Amino acid sequence: MARTHLPATGAWRPGDPPGRRQFAHLATDRPFVLEGGGILRDITVAYETWGALDAAGANAVLVCHALTGDSHVAGGVCPGHPGVGWWDGLVGPGRALDTDRYFVVCANVLGGCQGTTGPASPDPDTGEPYGSRFPVVSIRDMVRTQVAVANHLGVDRWLAVIGGSMGGMQVLEWGVMFPERVRSLVPIATVAAATAQQIAFGAVGRRAIRLDPNWRGGDYYDAPPGEGPHAGLALARMIAQITYRSDDVFSDRFGREVVEPLDGFSLWQRFQVERYLDYHGDKLVNRFDANSYLLLSKAMDLHDVGRGRGGVEAALARVRVPTLSIGIRSDTLYPPYQQHQIGAALEANGVPWRYVEIDSAHGHDAFLIDLDQVGAALAEHLAETEKADER
Amino acid sequence: MARTHLPATGAWRPGDPPGRRQFAHLATDRPFVLEGGGILRDITVAYETWGALDAAGANAVLVCHALTGDSHVAGGVCPGHPGVGWWDGLVGPGRALDTDRYFVVCANVLGGCQGTTGPASPDPDTGEPYGSRFPVVSIRDMVRTQVAVANHLGVDRWLAVIGGSMGGMQVLEWGVMFPERVRSLVPIATVAAATAQQIAFGAVGRRAIRLDPNWRGGDYYDAPPGEGPHAGLALARMIAQITYRSDDVFSDRFGREVVEPLDGFSLWQRFQVERYLDYHGDKLVNRFDANSYLLLSKAMDLHDVGRGRGGVEAALARVRVPTLSIGIRSDTLYPPYQQHQIGAALEANGVPWRYVEIDSAHGHDAFLIDLDQVGAALAEHLAETEKADER
Repeated sequence: MARTHLPATGAWRPGDPPGRRQFAHLATDRPFVLEGGGILRDITVAYETWGALDAAGANAVLVCHALTGDSHVAGGVCPGHPGVGWWDGLVGPGRALDTDRYFVVCANVLGGCQGTTGPASPDPDTGEPYGSRFPVVSIRDMVRTQVAVANHLGVDRWLAVIGGSMGGMQVLEWGVMFPERVRSLVPIATVAAATAQQIAFGAVGRRAIRLDPNWRGGDYYDAPPGEGPHAGLALARMIAQITYRSDDVFSDRFGREVVEPLDGFSLWQRFQVERYLDYHGDKLVNRFDANSYLLLSKAMDLHDVGRGRGGVEAALARVRVPTLSIGIRSDTLYPPYQQHQIGAALEANGVPWRYVEIDSAHGHDAFLIDLDQVGAALAEHLAETEKADER
Repeated sequence: MARTHLPATGAWRPGDPPGRRQFAHLATDRPFVLEGGGILRDITVAYETWGALDAAGANAVLVCHALTGDSHVAGGVCPGHPGVGWWDGLVGPGRALDTDRYFVVCANVLGGCQGTTGPASPDPDTGEPYGSRFPVVSIRDMVRTQVAVANHLGVDRWLAVIGGSMGGMQVLEWGVMFPERVRSLVPIATVAAATAQQIAFGAVGRRAIRLDPNWRGGDYYDAPPGEGPHAGLALARMIAQITYRSDDVFSDRFGREVVEPLDGFSLWQRFQVERYLDYHGDKLVNRFDANSYLLLSKAMDLHDVGRGRGGVEAALARVRVPTLSIGIRSDTLYPPYQQHQIGAALEANGVPWRYVEIDSAHGHDAFLIDLDQVGAALAEHLAETEKADER
C-alpha cells in the first residue's frame, strides 16, 4: 500500500479548494457548551445546498450524513471533493429528492473533517490543530449546529429530516429536540440507542487507531507525509466494512478467489476479499481524519435518545410528526427489529409511522447502494407529507 | 490493563510444568513437508488422554480443538494449565464423553503454542524460537500430525473424530484424508471451505497483530516483559469475540451499562461490553502466542476441503462414515446453512448424515457454552456408532 505520500490527515482544511461548500459561522459571542461538558468557540459549519427555498420556506429537506459521509450528497468529483456525492443518484431534477421541487441541505457534522470544525481544525486559542484537545461530541451537539444552519438559511421547519445510520440518529434527535421545526422524519437503518454489539464494533475500530504508533495520542498533524495514523484508520475501516456488507454478497462477489495463485502458502498472501478491504481502508485514509473517526464513532456509541429523558420511550414520545422508517432485510448491524422498536414507541404515542424494508442482500450499506428502492420510498414520503400539510 | 509483567509470549515452553501433557515426537529421520511448501523437522506433539483404550482398540475418540484451544479439554487449573478444560463438563465418568467407556484424546495443533511445535518453539537449527521463520501450516498438516499421535497410541480407527469451528475443519479433513481410520465424524459449527466473510474477519485480526509495533515482524521472543505484541493480539481477540457471540446476548448481558458514570464524556470511557472485550483480550494474551494466532487464523482461511481435489463436493465424496453435524441457531459466523451444505454433499454420496441444531442465543461459542445440548447429541451419536458397528 502506497501511503508514503499521504499527509497525516485526509481532512479538508482552510485554504483547500471549497468546492460546493458554503460556510456558516456560529455566533462567536458565546461559547458552545457541548452535552459532554466540553466547550468550543468559533464553530464553522460547512454545508451544501441543492435547489431553492420556496417563498413559503416550506420545501426544505435536511439530509444528515453517516459516520464517514460529508456534506457532498450529490455532485461529481472536482477540486475540494475527491469523491462523487454519496447519494448522487437521489438528488437532482426529477430525482427522488427533486431539486426542482425541494431545497436540499446537508451539513458536515461537528467533529467531522470536511469543513466543519473538528479535531483537524485550528484551535482559535493557539492556531494549531485541536488534536487530542478536541472535546467529545454527541449526536445532540451535531443537531444543535444544524439548527444554526437552518436559522442561517431561513428554514423554520424542515419538510423532512432524512438520514441513514449515524444520519438516522440525528434524524431521531431532531424529532425529539426540535419537534416544532420538523414536519416529518425519515430515519434509515438506525437505532434509538446504540446496542452493546454496535458499541463493541465501534470500540475495536477505535482501538485499531490507538494501536497505531503514528496516532501519537491524537497529535499527529505535523507528522511528515506517510507518517500519519493511516494503518490504524484503515484497519478501523476494514473492520467496519465487514459489518456494513453481508456474508451472501461477500460469497457471491469474492468467494475464495485469491490475488496471487495459491502455489505455496504465505502469511500475508491475500484473498480477493482482503484486497477489497484494503481498498476501502486506503480510500478512506485519503479523505478522512483519524481523530474525527474516533470522535464520530464514539458519538454513535453514546447515542441514546433516552439519555436524561427518562428512557427511549419517553424521549420518542416528544416526536409529533409522521415518520417513515426504512430498514434493510440483510442489515445485521442495524437490523430491521431496531427500526420496529422505533416504530413501536412512536405508534404508542399516536404518531403516524410507516415502515419500508429495502429488499437487498447488500447489508447495512444498502441505503447507499439500492437507490431505486430508497428513492421510491423517499419520493413517496415527501409527496405525502406535502399533501397532508395542504389538507 | 496491566500487561507490564507479561512475557512476550503466553506460549507453553520446554521447561514449563507439563501438567497433563504427554508428548509424541514425530520421526526425526525425514523432514515433514507441509502442504504449503514449508519444511519442519523434529516435530513434537503435545496431547492429553482420558480413560483407557480397550483391548480391541475400538473406543478411541479424537477431539480437535478450535483456534485458541489446546489439548486441555478437561481438568482443572494446575501448574502447566492456567485454565479449566474447555470442554470440562463433557469429559469424565458418566459424562457425554464417558471416560468409563471411551478413550478420549486431544492434541495441540501444529503451529499452536501449548506444547506442540509452533513459532515459539526452538528451531532445531539454531536453538532460538522460530518466530518469523515458522512456515504457514494448513488444517491438513495438523491432521497429519494427529495421525502420528494415533499411531503412537495404537489407535487404528477412531470411533469418532469430534470438533467445533477450526476443530470441525480438522474433523472434515480426517474424513477426507483418512476415511479408513475413522468410524464416524462430528463436525460442529464449521464449514467445508472458509467463506469470504470468515476470511475477512480473520484478516482484520491478523492486521491488528501486524499493526502492533511490538510484534516486530514476528521476532519478539526476546522482548522484555510487557513489550510483547500484547495489544495487537488482544485486539485480534476482541474483534473475534464479537463474532463469537450474538447481538441478543450482548444486549441482554450488557445493554448500555457503563463502567464509570456518564457525567461528562471522554473518548476512552468504557461501556461494560468494552470491559468484557478487554477482559477476553487480556485473558488470551496470558496464554497464547501472537505468531500462533496469525498462523492458525491463516490456516482457517486457507481451509478448503476441495483444494486440489476437484472441489468441495468431490472431496466430501471421499467420506464414507456416518456424520453428525451440529449447528447453532444463533451462529452468524458459521451459520446453520453451512452445516447443511456439508450434509448435502455427504447425502449426495449416500453417507448417513444427521443434523442437530443447538437452540441457543449465544452465537458461535454456544458449542463451548450449551454443554447439555452438545453433550446429549455427542452421547447419542457415540452410542449409535458403537451399536451400528456391532450389527
